[in-house]
Amino acid sequence: MESRTEIASLGEFGLIEHLTKNIEIKNASSLVGIGDDAAVIDHFGRQTVLSTDLLLEGIHFDLSYTPMKHLGYKAVVVNLSDIYAMNAIPTQILLSVGFSNRFSLEALDEFYSGVYAACEAYQVDLVGGDTSSSQKGFVISVTAIGEVAPDAFVKRNTAKETDLICVSGELGSAFLGLTLLEREKKIFQETGAQPDLEGQKHIVGRLLKPEARKDIVAYFSDEGILPTSMIDVSDGLSSDIMHICNQSKVGCVLYEDKFPFNEDAKEFAYKLQLDPTACALSGGEDYELLFTIAQSDYEKIKLNPAISIIGYTTQASEGMNLITRGGNKHALVAQGWNHVK
Amino acid sequence: MESRTEIASLGEFGLIEHLTKNIEIKNASSLVGIGDDAAVIDHFGRQTVLSTDLLLEGIHFDLSYTPMKHLGYKAVVVNLSDIYAMNAIPTQILLSVGFSNRFSLEALDEFYSGVYAACEAYQVDLVGGDTSSSQKGFVISVTAIGEVAPDAFVKRNTAKETDLICVSGELGSAFLGLTLLEREKKIFQETGAQPDLEGQKHIVGRLLKPEARKDIVAYFSDEGILPTSMIDVSDGLSSDIMHICNQSKVGCVLYEDKFPFNEDAKEFAYKLQLDPTACALSGGEDYELLFTIAQSDYEKIKLNPAISIIGYTTQASEGMNLITRGGNKHALVAQGWNHVK
Repeated sequence: MESRTEIASLGEFGLIEHLTKNIEIKNASSLVGIGDDAAVIDHFGRQTVLSTDLLLEGIHFDLSYTPMKHLGYKAVVVNLSDIYAMNAIPTQILLSVGFSNRFSLEALDEFYSGVYAACEAYQVDLVGGDTSSSQKGFVISVTAIGEVAPDAFVKRNTAKETDLICVSGELGSAFLGLTLLEREKKIFQETGAQPDLEGQKHIVGRLLKPEARKDIVAYFSDEGILPTSMIDVSDGLSSDIMHICNQSKVGCVLYEDKFPFNEDAKEFAYKLQLDPTACALSGGEDYELLFTIAQSDYEKIKLNPAISIIGYTTQASEGMNLITRGGNKHALVAQGWNHVK
Repeated sequence: MESRTEIASLGEFGLIEHLTKNIEIKNASSLVGIGDDAAVIDHFGRQTVLSTDLLLEGIHFDLSYTPMKHLGYKAVVVNLSDIYAMNAIPTQILLSVGFSNRFSLEALDEFYSGVYAACEAYQVDLVGGDTSSSQKGFVISVTAIGEVAPDAFVKRNTAKETDLICVSGELGSAFLGLTLLEREKKIFQETGAQPDLEGQKHIVGRLLKPEARKDIVAYFSDEGILPTSMIDVSDGLSSDIMHICNQSKVGCVLYEDKFPFNEDAKEFAYKLQLDPTACALSGGEDYELLFTIAQSDYEKIKLNPAISIIGYTTQASEGMNLITRGGNKHALVAQGWNHVK
């Protein structure tokens, strides 16, 4: 970085002005944005959907390999993913940031450039937030607001027996990206060798700059599909399908050979002697949509190449099971991220 | 505390279940609460008001003299105060908490008991949030949601010239409470002497367990008063009236002899050789409502003993001034809390 400006030189209000001066409101529903006690949003005839996430340095992200711009982008996207997982369209975000004096104004600008890039990509307005110093580390809190047609929201606890279980995109790649970056970090710490990320742009991108599945929710709307339940895959497929099954009081059968993988990611997994299926089940941070649909919607779903049908729901008494490529049946176990260790 | 349960023994989902199992939804608009990707709120025919605050240990609160229950209560109330400052009624909150392994489940329960007490007192629903471990310290992020009749929200930038400037309740007491607690903490650290808070319950309460002025917003509604601008006093009267004046492009005259003080607080200020007026202007954390009204509303306002008229707005060119008890005129200076030091 060429120059370093101390954030303290602006003062709190100067900082907010600096960080938010280029905001352009994109949604007519954003009546009042930054600069008052609260934001005001007009949702006449729509229902409001809200989600919030806390992201803490050293717990959720490692700045030794996470560029600030990517961090800003990802902080927004992971929250929008929760809004899409309700079958809603995100419209606004509130963003709070806490930072120690280790961070320069340039670093904060990088972070916000990522935030604004995400706002642009997903057409959401930043309408409020808070900035604060912290004693240690970078603290991020994002609240996302979305809207949905009356009662068109999709919950986790409404899957029915014999529904099809579907997932968008690919699974396990972000976990492989994390494994690679952690490995290269360790090598760097031990030997000083520069990271070798050659040919692994895809999995690193999946970790550092995930996207939320706006397209899938738009597809549902276009095709008149209302999933019977939905969640985003943030803790790993195993943990997230369990949320749906437990809350809906159904069981499930998943087919290993139906899991969607990226070919490069799969190859990299084998190179590390990791099982791609285990990465999908327990990895997390995929930010894909996992949902169930009535069998009558099968014809509509099968046309979309971004959607894989990976199993079906059963009676709760049958439990939650995986049928392996070899035809064996295994009970699923939850091994998701547990940030409360 | 009698027992100590490690939070890790519950796991993340167990913890959320533990902390939220007694929630009862109070607002019909809370369609979906905790337990899904996002909350869903019905605001048909109303506008949605949103505010968020980040509260960090060592920056915003000191656990050496702040009971966890009070902290939970205050974290909610300071956010609700922002919603009232828009002339809106809070209806829901989202709460995220990060904590290191220094904190036991019992401590977290205490914190949440304060949160639920505030939810009860203000009739708001906790509908979402996030829990996480932190590397160090206690991290709180609260987002408050409120509703307001279409276009009845009140902003900071809409005061007119020759409006009356009003403030609710009393000023400066929370700052005196902070001064007392910081002094006793220092004495304890140096000598081991137990804090002497004898007779200072009021100012300590104003700091540790503030209330938001729900009653004032209800009064506006009952009397058909629409303030021309409003803000809550969180940074000190001086800083907050400047927000109104700068954003509304008006000046102001404040009268020192009209400032509302609590008699015990004033006496304590003199004991410490502090000027109560300086405490009001620069102290902060009062969470009173500071607002302007058209002169035509004077008759309605003067009937409410909880409201003091402390000055009036002028042309911007006249600046922002204080008329002292002695009749001298001083330009106001902003000396609010600056968390970005």
